[in-house]
Amino acid sequence: MTYSVAVSGASGYAGGEILRLLASHPDIEIRTVTAHSNAGQPLIQHQPHLRSLAGLTLQDTTPEILAGHDIVFLALPHGQSGQYTDALGDTPLVIDAGADHRLTSETAWDAFYGGAFHEPWTYGVPELLVGGAKQREALRGATRIAAPGCNASTVSLSLVPGVAAGVIDPGDIVSVLAVGPSGAGKSLKSNLLASEILGTANPYAVGGTHRHIPEIRQALAAATGTGAPDSIRISFTPVLVPMSRGILATSTAPIVAGVTDAEIREAWESAYDGETFVHLLPEGSFPRTADVLGANTALIGLAIDRAANRVTVVTAVDNLVKGTAGAAIQSMNIALGLPEDRALSINGVAP
Amino acid sequence: MTYSVAVSGASGYAGGEILRLLASHPDIEIRTVTAHSNAGQPLIQHQPHLRSLAGLTLQDTTPEILAGHDIVFLALPHGQSGQYTDALGDTPLVIDAGADHRLTSETAWDAFYGGAFHEPWTYGVPELLVGGAKQREALRGATRIAAPGCNASTVSLSLVPGVAAGVIDPGDIVSVLAVGPSGAGKSLKSNLLASEILGTANPYAVGGTHRHIPEIRQALAAATGTGAPDSIRISFTPVLVPMSRGILATSTAPIVAGVTDAEIREAWESAYDGETFVHLLPEGSFPRTADVLGANTALIGLAIDRAANRVTVVTAVDNLVKGTAGAAIQSMNIALGLPEDRALSINGVAP
Amino acid sequence: MTYSVAVSGASGYAGGEILRLLASHPDIEIRTVTAHSNAGQPLIQHQPHLRSLAGLTLQDTTPEILAGHDIVFLALPHGQSGQYTDALGDTPLVIDAGADHRLTSETAWDAFYGGAFHEPWTYGVPELLVGGAKQREALRGATRIAAPGCNASTVSLSLVPGVAAGVIDPGDIVSVLAVGPSGAGKSLKSNLLASEILGTANPYAVGGTHRHIPEIRQALAAATGTGAPDSIRISFTPVLVPMSRGILATSTAPIVAGVTDAEIREAWESAYDGETFVHLLPEGSFPRTADVLGANTALIGLAIDRAANRVTVVTAVDNLVKGTAGAAIQSMNIALGLPEDRALSINGVAP
Amino acid sequence: MTYSVAVSGASGYAGGEILRLLASHPDIEIRTVTAHSNAGQPLIQHQPHLRSLAGLTLQDTTPEILAGHDIVFLALPHGQSGQYTDALGDTPLVIDAGADHRLTSETAWDAFYGGAFHEPWTYGVPELLVGGAKQREALRGATRIAAPGCNASTVSLSLVPGVAAGVIDPGDIVSVLAVGPSGAGKSLKSNLLASEILGTANPYAVGGTHRHIPEIRQALAAATGTGAPDSIRISFTPVLVPMSRGILATSTAPIVAGVTDAEIREAWESAYDGETFVHLLPEGSFPRTADVLGANTALIGLAIDRAANRVTVVTAVDNLVKGTAGAAIQSMNIALGLPEDRALSINGVAP
Repeated sequence: MTYSVAVSGASGYAGGEILRLLASHPDIEIRTVTAHSNAGQPLIQHQPHLRSLAGLTLQDTTPEILAGHDIVFLALPHGQSGQYTDALGDTPLVIDAGADHRLTSETAWDAFYGGAFHEPWTYGVPELLVGGAKQREALRGATRIAAPGCNASTVSLSLVPGVAAGVIDPGDIVSVLAVGPSGAGKSLKSNLLASEILGTANPYAVGGTHRHIPEIRQALAAATGTGAPDSIRISFTPVLVPMSRGILATSTAPIVAGVTDAEIREAWESAYDGETFVHLLPEGSFPRTADVLGANTALIGLAIDRAANRVTVVTAVDNLVKGTAGAAIQSMNIALGLPEDRALSINGVAP
Repeated sequence: MTYSVAVSGASGYAGGEILRLLASHPDIEIRTVTAHSNAGQPLIQHQPHLRSLAGLTLQDTTPEILAGHDIVFLALPHGQSGQYTDALGDTPLVIDAGADHRLTSETAWDAFYGGAFHEPWTYGVPELLVGGAKQREALRGATRIAAPGCNASTVSLSLVPGVAAGVIDPGDIVSVLAVGPSGAGKSLKSNLLASEILGTANPYAVGGTHRHIPEIRQALAAATGTGAPDSIRISFTPVLVPMSRGILATSTAPIVAGVTDAEIREAWESAYDGETFVHLLPEGSFPRTADVLGANTALIGLAIDRAANRVTVVTAVDNLVKGTAGAAIQSMNIALGLPEDRALSINGVAP
Repeated sequence: MTYSVAVSGASGYAGGEILRLLASHPDIEIRTVTAHSNAGQPLIQHQPHLRSLAGLTLQDTTPEILAGHDIVFLALPHGQSGQYTDALGDTPLVIDAGADHRLTSETAWDAFYGGAFHEPWTYGVPELLVGGAKQREALRGATRIAAPGCNASTVSLSLVPGVAAGVIDPGDIVSVLAVGPSGAGKSLKSNLLASEILGTANPYAVGGTHRHIPEIRQALAAATGTGAPDSIRISFTPVLVPMSRGILATSTAPIVAGVTDAEIREAWESAYDGETFVHLLPEGSFPRTADVLGANTALIGLAIDRAANRVTVVTAVDNLVKGTAGAAIQSMNIALGLPEDRALSINGVAP
Repeated sequence: MTYSVAVSGASGYAGGEILRLLASHPDIEIRTVTAHSNAGQPLIQHQPHLRSLAGLTLQDTTPEILAGHDIVFLALPHGQSGQYTDALGDTPLVIDAGADHRLTSETAWDAFYGGAFHEPWTYGVPELLVGGAKQREALRGATRIAAPGCNASTVSLSLVPGVAAGVIDPGDIVSVLAVGPSGAGKSLKSNLLASEILGTANPYAVGGTHRHIPEIRQALAAATGTGAPDSIRISFTPVLVPMSRGILATSTAPIVAGVTDAEIREAWESAYDGETFVHLLPEGSFPRTADVLGANTALIGLAIDRAANRVTVVTAVDNLVKGTAGAAIQSMNIALGLPEDRALSINGVAP
């Protein structure tokens, strides 16, 4: 069968990437695209790279217009997705690329986001270990899915294997991420102007204020099986660098006493063995973001630094694909019982 | 008086930057420029931006040609500077921009570099605290100066105040650096090609192998007053990003128990109060590398993350100026008794 | 049926892109990859983004190893492809991504390349008008195909419609191209180092020396139906800019006296009406290279500047796709009677 | 003596660059900085690279606040400078970095800008030939100066020598410019977002609509001595590329019949012989924008393409320095009788 789809936020970067991927999905018909401020305009005016969708016109983002599709993607700023929940009660599958349905803790939501708390939906990172199983299992047949935060899923994929295996200590994690500005969306902010980003590296949300922190703690806590995010401590610093897409996350955590190098490596190897889209690189190899540009792949390099008594994990993802839109569509494929890799590329566009 | 100067390695990036700065120094006459492989060619062919030096011709890098100047700058690959030491015995001031004379520990040299060990020279980072005093004092009247490694001095300037004041624990430091490729020099390596750097972030020397690690440990150990580098543990990861110049170092260290926020901030404030080229930014402000492009300035932002129990220090420098050539000339100015800021800019070229 | 394929030059940029596209082609089996200097090494070491081909090992580039496949792609420096012609006499389809078989004029070859002249093969730009017909017709059933030069095909696609329709004068063309460095290949040249490309625009081959000039003249002459390249005059200047991929060609030509605006626009509209991969944008719209990144699409914007008495055509292509590898595979699809767009994307990866 | 200065538009890119240069000018005291929307805020918040000016606070841009200084710089959007003319009647020297006082033709102003026409001031490009003399002469003792448009002065400097000498035909010029986004200012426009500029080349104002066109025609007409801009025809296309600063202008014009190569080259050589800031490169050499980053230098490369019957001139400038702020200060130095190169660098910051 062919599923009819509506995509809201279709003039933005996340919405555009969902459309780019769906455009090559044989089981999907893109019926409706919406963007509140640009309603009435041709999609191609805002997404000039989506040539195959040149015939689509943006409509307003209203519950009425989104209703009546088999699948609805919400690519809206946080705080907005939540209000469509009730209206889309009859929609078989709703996937939120925003933050509204990611967190299970209302306390964490209040501390980092604020505003109305919404019930958590099934988290859209299939490869994560959750209490011994993969999150993939929870996604089969899911009807409400929360696509992950791009930085959050990158760090979670980096560290969950070691935390789950008990070989690293989640109580003193440090993550520093080189990120491209497309993760911040198309907002007109002066710090996102090209002249402010070209030729420079800019840190932001330094000192523990980034909104993806509770999402990481939630995923790592789930990996331990205890579900206690408070035991997870993470120093998290994102740095904007001059590339349009990509996240390169360098994460380190203390090695648990007595653990061997083989045991450490085995934790990651077994976690991702057989995965289509998450690859542990051979010893001594580390990934570049170029290698996953446009692809749904996360590449992970692992180093054991005994002098520093820390494991260093470097992970590359495309923030708009594996970090957002690809995760959403991979999760959709699983929920619908389709091949998990449908319309998703393993290979990056490089150089 | 005017000092006559010879610069070796003049066709490379470090040599070029030394020349760019010296070109506007009123007390310096650039008499000789050398570059082994390009001897006989006009300097301007290799440094087309140095228009005011268009009349200079590159000579061979030999002891005879370098001898007979008041000041010699060595901007050569490590392992090469050392061989000129004896030959330049009569030269009043020799400044090495390479690594050969930075390390005090032969063991550390052997572990990270290898080859002949050379005696340590006076370290060229004037603002570092060394056992209560500033390194500036050691530089007054110095005749042999080792300019710092760019990554090393950036991290040392970031953390020395906290280590010296005893408010952070140097036993579990994590530093991740976004760095521009000019730090790697003009070497013809395929991983330094533009197509491999544009649009991507590339980690290297992951897992504790970078050669600047012992230099950082040495500086931090000196700050403690104990001089024991073995007590310093650092997880250090540099990441190449698509900007020609600049280092943005994000460093974190555990907060020592019982220390207040005010005590932490005071450590950095007092360390750099009155410094011309090292500035602590106001609370909540963090630097960008663009702000120091072409300048000899290090900008430092400090966050206290109680949830992670870590101090986060983000420091921006221009790797070729404050990280190398500017440090060399600032040290030269001090050694000669000239105004410390002569020929050095405080303001960056932005955007 | 499934066609067995060998790709030579598989460790380079053009070879890598051919492989990236073939990897998703359902009718192709990539059996052999070769690279002379890197024979014996895993392909993934040189093309870390081609994760789905991680099992392939590079072999030497010899006639024996290339022989015995249904299709052979040659992605070699010019002057090298020619020597495999005889050895691959039994191979049903050979596609050369190099220059050896593009030019029909030995005089032009001698003037711009030199060395042995090789017979011209069928030129791989299906959308070009050649004496009233499309080049596509010549490609049906072709057994020897010369993929185009990336700059050449971009300029030819820009201007052929106007030349064929007689609305612009091919006797005084000016083309200036902003190009990414991947077009120059993975050569270890100092002017291709990242530090030399980041943050700067660098012209090269200024003044009429670029090797793609005779190829453009040949295509434009063919469009006139006279086949006289000498009547085509073009001032051609490429400028390297800091993007890994992409060509943005700005081409202008004098308007023929008495021609109306409608006639001018009609020339391009009719030439590309119905084409899958070459799109004329609406009046007032001009393309960006980002819009075609990774795609086989050429986007063309057209302006009529009566004050300057010139038509300005701005065309964006991905030099590695529509400029090289995509053109090769599109031509292959046509030669084999497969759907022309198989394994080729219309939509770019943006932002 | 020390001149007191006020700079309006001090939070923008042009204003910031004027301040960066003035900060090292020994004869200038920066007394007042203004920025209408940001009045009351510290300058350093908007210009974090201007560390030496950290003590300054932005005031409102009013005639009262600007009055009472020896020199006033206006760095405001076009249409705004004009309204301060009367109010600053007593100010000895006013320099406008905007467009309001550049054009001599009200017709041209109406066609390209619109709104109130203001009287032309002395044009601030000292090296231009104007009817046999240099524009420098007109600037001596000037009290009202119009700094040039960055693209306009780059193209004018490129072609004026050949036009003045009668060796090229100004009736069919084609100029294509690679430009950095800082030339467009700090405006919050979605096409200036980093994600829209990184990794891509974007043309704009295609087809003869760019506002710098009449300024170029005016300068070239002045060079001919006829003062008839209508005889100048130029096809002008700017292309945004991913570098924060810089203009690389490729300009071509037909060679006048019968002129020898030596005569052509002599035109540029004699025009710029002895100039501090405009350099003709040796035959076969062409400039990069990196070579003039932060410098007040224009580098010009000249090729004679007999096959195309065109001269090609490639010129690199830093749009914010030689293109705007440096031109303003160079003109100020001349007007005040100070050394022309005071506070201006010849050497660029590269790599």
